Amino acid sequence: MTVYMPERILVAPSGFKESLSAIEVADAIAAGVRRVYPGVHVDTYPVPDGGEGTLEILATRAETIPHSLEVTGPVGRSVTATWLELPNHTGVIEMASAAGLRLVPHDQRDPGATTTFGVGQLIADALDHGMRHIIVGCGDSGTSDGGAGALQALGVRILDARGAEIPAGGAALIDAAAVDTSGLHPAWKCAKVQLACNMHNVFTGPRGVAAVFGPQKGASPEQVSLLDAALTNFARLLTEHCSPTVDLYTGPGTGASGGLGAGLAALGAQLENRFDVLLGSVSAGPTGSLDELIAQADLIITAEGAIDFQTPHGKVPAEIARRAQTTGVPVLALAGSLGKGAPSVHDVGISAIASIMNVPMDFEQAVKNGGTLLADATERTMRLVQLGSAINGRSARKALRLQAV
Amino acid sequence: MTVYMPERILVAPSGFKESLSAIEVADAIAAGVRRVYPGVHVDTYPVPDGGEGTLEILATRAETIPHSLEVTGPVGRSVTATWLELPNHTGVIEMASAAGLRLVPHDQRDPGATTTFGVGQLIADALDHGMRHIIVGCGDSGTSDGGAGALQALGVRILDARGAEIPAGGAALIDAAAVDTSGLHPAWKCAKVQLACNMHNVFTGPRGVAAVFGPQKGASPEQVSLLDAALTNFARLLTEHCSPTVDLYTGPGTGASGGLGAGLAALGAQLENRFDVLLGSVSAGPTGSLDELIAQADLIITAEGAIDFQTPHGKVPAEIARRAQTTGVPVLALAGSLGKGAPSVHDVGISAIASIMNVPMDFEQAVKNGGTLLADATERTMRLVQLGSAINGRSARKALRLQAV
Repeated sequence: MTVYMPERILVAPSGFKESLSAIEVADAIAAGVRRVYPGVHVDTYPVPDGGEGTLEILATRAETIPHSLEVTGPVGRSVTATWLELPNHTGVIEMASAAGLRLVPHDQRDPGATTTFGVGQLIADALDHGMRHIIVGCGDSGTSDGGAGALQALGVRILDARGAEIPAGGAALIDAAAVDTSGLHPAWKCAKVQLACNMHNVFTGPRGVAAVFGPQKGASPEQVSLLDAALTNFARLLTEHCSPTVDLYTGPGTGASGGLGAGLAALGAQLENRFDVLLGSVSAGPTGSLDELIAQADLIITAEGAIDFQTPHGKVPAEIARRAQTTGVPVLALAGSLGKGAPSVHDVGISAIASIMNVPMDFEQAVKNGGTLLADATERTMRLVQLGSAINGRSARKALRLQAV
Repeated sequence: MTVYMPERILVAPSGFKESLSAIEVADAIAAGVRRVYPGVHVDTYPVPDGGEGTLEILATRAETIPHSLEVTGPVGRSVTATWLELPNHTGVIEMASAAGLRLVPHDQRDPGATTTFGVGQLIADALDHGMRHIIVGCGDSGTSDGGAGALQALGVRILDARGAEIPAGGAALIDAAAVDTSGLHPAWKCAKVQLACNMHNVFTGPRGVAAVFGPQKGASPEQVSLLDAALTNFARLLTEHCSPTVDLYTGPGTGASGGLGAGLAALGAQLENRFDVLLGSVSAGPTGSLDELIAQADLIITAEGAIDFQTPHGKVPAEIARRAQTTGVPVLALAGSLGKGAPSVHDVGISAIASIMNVPMDFEQAVKNGGTLLADATERTMRLVQLGSAINGRSARKALRLQAV
């Protein structure tokens, strides 16, 4: 009786925050796989999620041209940010490149003050270069200004009751009384602008940007309450002035990147599921699109820094499992840490999970040794999978013996 | 295409030192297995290794009678110790019950001073009760007296040059000048005494008791050197006086339990591989012997607190793998910690290993939550094995489709 083994394995992981990029995660997993199955064909597909690393991944998939420029960073200091030119006049912006949490020093974590002005500058630069399809990757943002800064950089004026421009940051939006879109970048109207969002994020209220992300970004309870009032005021103003087709207060994705979703949606940008936008043709490499790679695989390995009760709700491993489900290809997920409720991922089609931990250690050690731990854990995991095949072989032999009797 | 699953799983683990007994380890693993394979037949066989927990395990396998008595503990204080009466006049002693490291308070860890006197008292009591086959489980000892205390408790006199009894402890043996066996327990000669040893342990020299275990038991380099000289003197004296059939200095197993092996071997006790002694008929339960259970299993799960480069050299998982190898039943091993060189166990027949860690945590947390971590890790491991079977099914289906073409 032959013991069958996987012939093609697809490695489609997220990055491990603070430790490894998605590309590094994929490489470590592939190395671990090959220790056990040296002859197997491994496809690596690090998953772009709109946040940090998205451009880096897309640059590996197609002929692209990076465009770097100085923009205003989230705390006002100038930063060098990059957008990516793809074929067919498509420009991809990673909002975190201009306004990511990483760019906000710990001692300046005031979510009422940070701005997405640089994001608007990147979009404007892409429009200036003739891009007619703009994709804005949301995620890992350090801002909560409802996209006000981005609108200003695109030529929109946001004024207080006395007709003065309001200053940068979400908190100041409490004074916003008028919007003037007459100066909007002329190419905006001719361009298709898509935001790659986590659709669970909404702009205002108890599940809104201030309430959910404010504390993460450094806000006190009082600041949260003031910030939510300011953002609600801004949503009202944009709704009145722009007559958007989506509900700017609690529409799906309006809360993406601290409300950048709401701000750009007011101007007609489309809020879409980040995976629908990013895992289609835009990220198809020479070996095929994600769905094509999934269909060809005998086994899929995904990964995320932490797997827990939140994972089924729109995280990378859950998305990979959702796409694999129709094909019947089994999915296993590796994680730096398996937190509370991790087994809930079995309900969304992930067959097995494993942690990269091998001995008791603290978080810093785990982060520092992420690559080695991950490759070693992948090896162990593959040996368990291989053992499953061996049992199969034995059981099949047994069954044959019984038939013979 | 049917996906085969294991019908019988054998769980044959060691205990996790400081955290779980072998029985608790087996129960936690069985619980984890049943979460994934609810219908599977699980045999649990916690492995007696001669150290702590050995009697507890044997008591679950057959009709036994425990005999408890007050004996002299390793630091002179009285302790209650137990030996186990088995059928056929067989008595099993767990040396750690009377002289284990656990009984030596941290502030009294002087390996030159502790005594095996209580072990001799247990043997004498078993002989008094008519036992004619005595098995002495070695392991987890807190002593390094070459079994001198045990010999004294059995009626042997160990004298200095002036004819005075030497005091307790290995260090005092530097003054031993004569041995008088005329008062030896009269039943000793008629009994078969087997020591269940780790045969890698030798009595004297650079790999001897003082050098290897002295530091673990609290000795300074100078103490190690003095203790080795004292034990060497004792080996010389016993060799001259008793004419033993084994080399008391560096014969296999002479270093078991701080040289208890050498001392009792001088009187004719047999030093044997602990697994040969303990994993045969003496521990066969109503469901069969270990080897019978192995032969019936589709999968064997073993475990140990730590798996590392030392595991292949006579540890429980290696022994289980050795016994399974002729039958072809795959073996997987779980561990609290996978240390340096853990993958070396693949060379001795263990197909796959897994750690019980799920998140970064310190050693104390791991020890405290051992049972939960182990059951959860077993579940994850079984899902990976199950996934291996599923891949098999796919590959087989593919092969069938190709045949049909």
